[in-house]
Parts: sequence; C-alpha cells; structure tokens
Amino acid sequence: MTSAPQSKWWERDDLYRAQDRLVFCGQDIEALARSVDTPAFFYNTARVQQNLERLHRVLRSVHPRFRIFYAIKANRYAPLLTWMKSTGLCGVDVCSPDELRHALAAGFRQEDISYTATGMSRDDAALLARNPGVLVNCDGIGAIRHLGRACPGRHIGIRINPSQGAGYGDNEKLRYSGKKTTKFGIYRDQFDEALRIARQHDLVVCRIHLHIGCGYLNPQLPEWAAGLEACQWFLDQVPDLEAINLGGGLGVPHREGDEPLDLHRWAGIISDFVGERDVEINIEPGDYIVKDAGLLAVEVNAVERKQDTVFVTVNAGFNVAMEPVFYDLPCEPVSCVLKEPSSAEQRCGESDDHGDAEVTIVGPINEAIDVWAANKVFPPVAEGDIIALLNSGGYAASMSSNHCLRGHFSQNILFSEGS
Amino acid sequence: MTSAPQSKWWERDDLYRAQDRLVFCGQDIEALARSVDTPAFFYNTARVQQNLERLHRVLRSVHPRFRIFYAIKANRYAPLLTWMKSTGLCGVDVCSPDELRHALAAGFRQEDISYTATGMSRDDAALLARNPGVLVNCDGIGAIRHLGRACPGRHIGIRINPSQGAGYGDNEKLRYSGKKTTKFGIYRDQFDEALRIARQHDLVVCRIHLHIGCGYLNPQLPEWAAGLEACQWFLDQVPDLEAINLGGGLGVPHREGDEPLDLHRWAGIISDFVGERDVEINIEPGDYIVKDAGLLAVEVNAVERKQDTVFVTVNAGFNVAMEPVFYDLPCEPVSCVLKEPSSAEQRCGESDDHGDAEVTIVGPINEAIDVWAANKVFPPVAEGDIIALLNSGGYAASMSSNHCLRGHFSQNILFSEGS
Repeated sequence: MTSAPQSKWWERDDLYRAQDRLVFCGQDIEALARSVDTPAFFYNTARVQQNLERLHRVLRSVHPRFRIFYAIKANRYAPLLTWMKSTGLCGVDVCSPDELRHALAAGFRQEDISYTATGMSRDDAALLARNPGVLVNCDGIGAIRHLGRACPGRHIGIRINPSQGAGYGDNEKLRYSGKKTTKFGIYRDQFDEALRIARQHDLVVCRIHLHIGCGYLNPQLPEWAAGLEACQWFLDQVPDLEAINLGGGLGVPHREGDEPLDLHRWAGIISDFVGERDVEINIEPGDYIVKDAGLLAVEVNAVERKQDTVFVTVNAGFNVAMEPVFYDLPCEPVSCVLKEPSSAEQRCGESDDHGDAEVTIVGPINEAIDVWAANKVFPPVAEGDIIALLNSGGYAASMSSNHCLRGHFSQNILFSEGS
Repeated sequence: MTSAPQSKWWERDDLYRAQDRLVFCGQDIEALARSVDTPAFFYNTARVQQNLERLHRVLRSVHPRFRIFYAIKANRYAPLLTWMKSTGLCGVDVCSPDELRHALAAGFRQEDISYTATGMSRDDAALLARNPGVLVNCDGIGAIRHLGRACPGRHIGIRINPSQGAGYGDNEKLRYSGKKTTKFGIYRDQFDEALRIARQHDLVVCRIHLHIGCGYLNPQLPEWAAGLEACQWFLDQVPDLEAINLGGGLGVPHREGDEPLDLHRWAGIISDFVGERDVEINIEPGDYIVKDAGLLAVEVNAVERKQDTVFVTVNAGFNVAMEPVFYDLPCEPVSCVLKEPSSAEQRCGESDDHGDAEVTIVGPINEAIDVWAANKVFPPVAEGDIIALLNSGGYAASMSSNHCLRGHFSQNILFSEGS
C-alpha cells in the first residue's frame, strides 16, 4: 500500500490515496465512477466482512454465545443482503412487514430474522403468525396482545425502555430513550402488565430487547453503560430469559478527531452487564457494518465563487443521503484525483502551497439545506471531477428520495481481488 | 355546509366537520380512505383552482401583465399537473432536467415552463438547447457560460441574490438568501461580470429572477419587502428588462394562530416594487397552490400509554411527508370521525368533557424523530380509526422516501360534484 505522505483520518487498508488517486477496495474510484456513471454508490464487501468479523472476535472474547443481526434499515440493497447471508456471519434485524418480506426474499431463514417494529397492527401480527420462526420483539402492550391472539404460545422478546439515552455527539435526535417519554419499548411502570398479558396468551417471554441510541462512540460509552445498568431490573423479572438483545447504535467516526469505538471497552461493558447470566447476547448494528463500507461518487457540475464562498456543486443532493442534514452526521468529501493547482480549470479563493483552499460543497437541489460540507479545505477541483462522499454505505440509498426528480443513482458491489 | 359548533382554525368551505365527520371536497374522508386503503393522499382540484384564481385576482388588481408558474417540486403528481395545465391558469416552474422532461410529458408547452436550477452542467445546457422555448433563469456565471455556448442568442433570465431572506417562523433553514452567502443566484459584486459574459455569447438578459425564502406569512412581509427593495439596483442594470420573476415562498397557515397571508398587502408590496416599470411579473408558488389542497389519510395501528404519554401510532411515518421534521412545518392531525368517548376501544390519560385528551401522534418508523404531533389535544381515538394529516399537498409525496420499506401510499385526485 502506497499512501500519500500525510495520512488522512479516514485512510485505512482498503481506502487510501496512492499516486494521488483515491483507491477503494483495491480499485481506482475515479475510473470506476466513470465506467458506471454518477451518482454511484460503491459498497466494499471486504470492509463489511471486516466489520462483522471484528465484532465476532470481540464478542467471542467476552461471551460464549452471541448472534449479530444486521439492521437492514441502514442498507437493504438486495445483492448486498444476499451476499451477507452467504458469509454466515449474521442474521438480520427488520423493522417493518415489508422489510421482513424483503429479508426472506434475499435468502435469510425465518430463524435468522429479528423483528422489532413500533406500533404493531393486527395485520402485522397476522404476517408474523405466518412466519413462526421469526424472532419477534414486542414494542408495547398492544403488540403483545395482537401477537398473543395471532399466535398463542409463541416465544417472544419484549423491547424495554430504560429511560437512558446515548447518541453521536450527544445529539438529542439520536437518543431513543431518555428523560422524555418516547414511543419505544415498555417502561418499568407497565412491565408487570406486559408479562401478565403475555401469560394470558401463553406467550413465553424469553428475550429482552433494548436500544439506547444511535451512532455512539467512546465519549458516549458511560451513558450507554448506564443505560444497560438501568435494564438489570427488567432482566430479573423474566424467569425464562434466554437472550438479551442490546440493539444497535454502534457508531463510526464521521469527522476528523472522532476516535473509532473502542470495542474492547464496549465488550467489557456488555460483560459486566451480563455477568453470570446464562443467556445469548444479540446485537443489531446497522451503520457499524455498512456505513464506512460505502462511498458515493459524484461529479462536479460547477465550481463558482459567490461573494466570499467558493461553491462546488455536485450532481447529487441531500435527498440521496439525508443523514448529514437530518442528524448532522456528515459524509466526508474526498477528491478522487489530486491535481496540480494549475490543472484545475477554474481556481477560486485563496489557496495554500498545495493548492488547497476552502470550498463549500453543495448539491443541485433548490433548497438552502442542500449542503454536503461548508468551508472545507479541499484540493484543486474543477468541473467534471469526481468527488467521493465517504460514510455513505448506511442510511443513504435506503433512505433516499426522488425530490426534484434528482434521486437517480446506481448501487455497485465491490469485491477484493481474489475473493 | 353544516359545521360543528366550534369552528377549528383549519375549517373552510371545502374542509369542515359535518355531523361529526370530516368532509373534504364534498366527500366523507373516512369512507374515501377505506375505499382506497391507507396511507392515501387526497388532492382537491377545486381548492387548487381557488388558490390559483385568488392569486390571479389580486395580481390583476395591481399589475396588468403577470404569469404564474406553479413550482412542481412541491407536488409533481402527473395527473394533477395535467389537470392544472387544462385549467389554463398557470405554467410550471421546474428545477432539474428531469422535472423539465416531466412537465413536458404532462402536457405543458416549452413556452409555459420556467427553468431555474442550481449548478447547471454542460449536459443540462444541451438539454435546454433542445428546448428553445423554455424560459431559463441562470443561477450563476457558469450557467450563463454553458448556456451561451449551447444556445447563443437566447433570451435568458438571471437569478440574483439580494442578500435578504424571509421564511416561515423566521426559520433560518427556509431563508434562501441572507447575511451568509448561499449557493443561490448572482450577487451584486458579480452582476456586471454576468452581464458581460452574457453579451459575449449574444445572450439577451430580459428577466431578473429572485427567491427570498419559503413559507412566509404576514409577519415576514416586511423582510420580504426589504428583500425586493434590495433588488432594485439589479433591475436598473438590465436595459432589456421584460419580466421580473419574484420566485415562490408564499406560505400557508400551519398552526392555530397562523394568519393566512394577506394577499392585498403582498400585492401592494409588489406594486410598490415594480412601480412604473413596463414589465411582466412572474411568480413561482408551490406550497401556496397545493399544500392546503392535500391531505394524507392514515390509519391508527395502535393507541397506547407509555408513562405520561399516550402514543397514537399511525401507518405512515415522517418519510412520506418530511417537512414537519425537516422544517418544523407540521401537518395538523384531524380525526375523521368524532365519536363518543365510550365508543373508543381504548382510552388513556385524562380527558375533558368531550373526551378530548392529550396524545402524541407518531409514525411506525424506528426513529425518535418520527413524530407527527406531540402533546396534542385530540378527540377519542382507537385502533383502526382514520386520521387526516392536513397541509400535505406539498413537499410530501414528491419528497417521500421508502425508508424502512414504509414508503407505500396512493395519490388520489378529487373533483367537486358537478365539476
């Protein structure tokens, strides 16, 4: 691997600059992007596998029995799901009836599918009755009642709410639990009633499910640990406890200065939490598996200074990757080809010795929020160049909209040489 | 029309309660919703027509020559567009190449299409060259250059940026112009250069385009007026001025207490701004035309108290109408059938004499932001009920995503009896 002298925070074995060109999964991203046209998402299967295997290693080191259910809401691209199934490294977590159908269609067995959805309807319960192997976690009293009527005797999980949240950058929007009552799970004051209604329908509560927040990194681990501790009481109420599902939310770095999640510390917290209980640990990561395994290649439509700002307009907007705008989780922009300053067709603003200068990278949507990165120090860039937006493997294509009829893109699966 | 005794802020001739049932466009919304299944958008053509005719009347009263270009980004549902074309009341404003193709496909003539997009590429310019009748407004120097090369001699507009913004509730996200430099339009410091480059390509600048912000109501009119005044300088630089396009942004009430935009005051500002100039006035309203002409009917999947909050989960989430979450522009929830408190299957919380009680109406997406209305005083509601979400005719279906595979809905056109 030949990297540029000064390593960037996002560079790693499968994503780096070599001879001033961006390489991902062993391939030249500019050439790839031009071959399939832009906007184009690229998903590196090798990175997905690494992310899964890293979780396997660390979980194995602290607990004998565990299962990983990949949360497909992060990225449900069917070829990716089918490939993930083939690795044998994970089941999937689904959160809607159609996600369940989609997971089955991609090749997953009922027994490898964890289903946790809010506001279960009678129709949802009827679908679950037709899929008796699916691992259902009930998010409320009503869900237990519906499921009890539709499939009495079933083994179920209950999603609880520990009234403790944790999310990336302490973002309130990413906390699924906290002082304010949220729609998620069953709180302590109704847990006895939940167990009673389950018994009425001969449902066997064998699993506790919880989800504390999204995108948490090391600074949020104490909060996350406190969230787990707040769940101990619930575990003690469940005599047939077979599994604890800790939800997802494991974050990845989004900005320079973000440290990767310390998985050993994270697993230590799980180990302390589980203690001597003879249970299976389940987790449901989404972003952690796919986000940094994907990038979005876009083309520069225009470079133009307006007053004090150089705007670089690319051919995809916030509608194809909404997390930067919704949740302040940016997609780091990276130039795919470093050029001499003089070769850039149109230079604007002040630049340093390398030709780097501040730019604001925006999409083509007629809305003020359509900004990928404001005041970003960036290498020389010109119309027609390809820019990679990192960390777009999760909550991007799957959440995209065709707003302004600018929702077109391709999705492309990458394999390493020899794999 | 038989209304319930206490009129609600959103009631009007074509939307009201009669015998405790919600009526829209002369039809019973619950029955309609059950006939086509939910989630279902309903668009009232009569209300769209009223909105257009109201604008025609007030503009006619202050200025002899004007044209309305409906901004299809608000709602591009093809049957609605084709019907609008047939009324003869408006052209359309498009903001992307595919929106242009879509408008042509719906039946609009090139001459009735205004095109204003950010970051024009060479390909975009080539498409516009193949559509010589389209009224193009260039958003930057680069756009003028591209268009000049692709179709020299064309008559064009220039979108300017007056450095003055105005938006609903003084929401910074809805200002398209202001102290901070935005990607939109050409600022004063580059306007001479813009005109020079246009001349180099024999382009005739005959129109000035501006857009100050979105959703403005009466409290924002002084700011809007100031934004217009800041444009006078630009007008004086354009010897061949034939038209001024004032953009869109006319707002509609979203909350109790929001007063409808005072159109006479608004038109007076336009009149003062235009003065004795012999020009055509263009406007590009989107929301103002379609937003209050649409409602989204959803079904209640679950009603359940959690701690201090009663959650009403409906079968559509923020992903099918994102403005409430993106821009804090709520869709007012309304019960389609007022029932006796006792007939509600499951009552929760404290209620008043009518059985009204505070509820929090949420969608089925596993995300904390998926809330339609928090702590809303609402009539008795039970599983299976139909709720109407008002003001969802604009920036809802057109901006929707299939997040969590919960993006399904139908769109339905309503006509008044006898029309």
